[in-house]
Amino acid sequence: MPIAEPGGRPTDTAAARLIIDLAAIAGNFRLLASRVSPVEVGVAVKADAYGLGMARVAPALHTAGARTFFVAWLEEGMALRRLLPEVEILCLNGVAPGAAEAYAQHRLTPVLGSLEEIAEWRATSHGGGAPAALQIDSGMARLGLSAEEVDRLVADRKPLDGLNLTLVMSHLACGDDPKEPMSAAQRASFERDRGRLRLDRLRSSLAASGGSFRGSDFHIDLVRPGAALYGLAPLMGEANPMAQVVRLQAKILQVRRVDRGMTVGYGATHRTTRPSRLATISTGYADGYFRSLSNRGHACLGPVRVPVVGRVSMDLLTLDVTDAPAGLAQRGAWVDLIGPHHTVDDLAAEAGTIGYEILTALGRRYARHYLPADGPPGGEAGAAR
Amino acid sequence: MPIAEPGGRPTDTAAARLIIDLAAIAGNFRLLASRVSPVEVGVAVKADAYGLGMARVAPALHTAGARTFFVAWLEEGMALRRLLPEVEILCLNGVAPGAAEAYAQHRLTPVLGSLEEIAEWRATSHGGGAPAALQIDSGMARLGLSAEEVDRLVADRKPLDGLNLTLVMSHLACGDDPKEPMSAAQRASFERDRGRLRLDRLRSSLAASGGSFRGSDFHIDLVRPGAALYGLAPLMGEANPMAQVVRLQAKILQVRRVDRGMTVGYGATHRTTRPSRLATISTGYADGYFRSLSNRGHACLGPVRVPVVGRVSMDLLTLDVTDAPAGLAQRGAWVDLIGPHHTVDDLAAEAGTIGYEILTALGRRYARHYLPADGPPGGEAGAAR
Repeated sequence: MPIAEPGGRPTDTAAARLIIDLAAIAGNFRLLASRVSPVEVGVAVKADAYGLGMARVAPALHTAGARTFFVAWLEEGMALRRLLPEVEILCLNGVAPGAAEAYAQHRLTPVLGSLEEIAEWRATSHGGGAPAALQIDSGMARLGLSAEEVDRLVADRKPLDGLNLTLVMSHLACGDDPKEPMSAAQRASFERDRGRLRLDRLRSSLAASGGSFRGSDFHIDLVRPGAALYGLAPLMGEANPMAQVVRLQAKILQVRRVDRGMTVGYGATHRTTRPSRLATISTGYADGYFRSLSNRGHACLGPVRVPVVGRVSMDLLTLDVTDAPAGLAQRGAWVDLIGPHHTVDDLAAEAGTIGYEILTALGRRYARHYLPADGPPGGEAGAAR
Repeated sequence: MPIAEPGGRPTDTAAARLIIDLAAIAGNFRLLASRVSPVEVGVAVKADAYGLGMARVAPALHTAGARTFFVAWLEEGMALRRLLPEVEILCLNGVAPGAAEAYAQHRLTPVLGSLEEIAEWRATSHGGGAPAALQIDSGMARLGLSAEEVDRLVADRKPLDGLNLTLVMSHLACGDDPKEPMSAAQRASFERDRGRLRLDRLRSSLAASGGSFRGSDFHIDLVRPGAALYGLAPLMGEANPMAQVVRLQAKILQVRRVDRGMTVGYGATHRTTRPSRLATISTGYADGYFRSLSNRGHACLGPVRVPVVGRVSMDLLTLDVTDAPAGLAQRGAWVDLIGPHHTVDDLAAEAGTIGYEILTALGRRYARHYLPADGPPGGEAGAAR
């Protein structure tokens, strides 16, 4: 929320800011497209584009060439339809119970995943003739036709007759782990079921981010990455080829000198072992900086790593800046919570989770700055890629 | 987002909904007020009223009698000022660096916490004469005057001269733990520093939710609960006297029968030990249902507890409903993720965190329903208080 300073120069009063590099997202899309060419790259923009803001991210991806978009909820699809009137929008969570009419009304394609759902879709006013996709489960046991349901459809294909299917898909449980044999088994199961259901000539998709970086036999007709677009490492244990997209910064509110033996924060879980300087910033677990980062997370003051000490509070956290140059550790200085020296994946490892959860938890209080998609590559968020 | 059904009856298409009982919040405020009477109850509505929606919660608290409101960020104070033109609004995170002018402009009271901040406040166009509060650290080492700064002010009180102080406060590190001796030490330290700074006749506040349920020597002139208003237990190891405020429900998308020995979800971390029925719902970590609840969380189908199996995904999770009556475990049935049989604190314990973090992480995709503050007590959210 910019406030005009007395001199008239606008300044940003926010105590923390999130910088999102749309050029990096567009570049990641192009990298994926060249990686899987000539296979199409659909894009996952569910969960508000993994927390980065669908309203800004989806148009940037569209400009970069994306034409097939994946969301989870009906309401996300409706919001995306208003942004992009012409693209294909698939709703991965299928038909929300009782909401079947709304999908066709907003030209959204539900991903049908059970016989009950197919029946509900067929019972709509359009008789199931609006575009739909079909999911077959191959090992997630989450959404999609079960083995038992596939058998029933093979025996009696009637529930599929008259459906206007535009895609058949499945989902890998361990797509990010190249060493895991389950992915090959899922691919074989998916191929077999497509054949048995006589859907082998229908447009097909199996791979998300991880699968996009596996062999081309995982790509089929369409890959549908999310995480890789937003800078997360697509494969475990391998170098990350994606550009970083996010930089999260907070201003130091206060630097405090404390003696040796002082306790810090709720529950007094940290005790200083030397005379220390502590910096407090306006970011806490209400901003998605997880409480599990208490006494475990790190931030960076310039290139200097500084540890979180004590428990993360709702609106604040405290860093031990004793080892940072005093010139850097001052009231008003920007600290990188996520940045060129500390990626989303790094922070996730400290929190005991995955980068996906860090991104989707990014809070609403940050001032959000978007670096334009047509800006120079390697903008502020990716300065040290 | 309600969609009109063909027959004209509006229905709710959302696959998950959050019910927030404003009457329970108002009741909790009145319980606190009677608990500490005649001491005033200020209310913490920071972090969007602990995730429950400041725009609805703050006016309900105002109607119930609250006149002193606490937020963290400047921007939260500005939003609250638009909602409630006349109340006192204190910004706990102090003066955001470089933003001092904005507080007086919006009639917000910053809680000053360091000599630097006091100097920045004095240097504004109003010369520091607009209302401000002062925080003294008594053991959090987070915000507030340090021991060293108090000593300097005792030696030279000039930086306080001319300040229009309306409150002096400190904050307990272990206020929720009646067995912890640190609270009494903090209280003594706060009293001593107020005396040394000749602020002992100024309105004073030390207690948040926990302290409100301690002895009256913790209450002083003003308590400032947040958590207790929103139904969280104020004291560790004691029965929770507060009414439950939140009910979180999701519709079953699909019930799947699976054989013994099937794996579930990402990373195949769960394997069924018997023929099972699994229910998938549209809630995941992007909705604030933490990934740490993977294979640990529970939900309720009516009164029947059902465990989360496999990893929580971004937009989905899977429950083992084998032991629930088939009549309850059906597509379209509502599951309680938080409800009368499974409180916020219960879910927090399963996630290895505190109820505060569960509340502030509540996602944006849920359809939010507010039960009116003037409705009957014990509404839907608190049916089994």
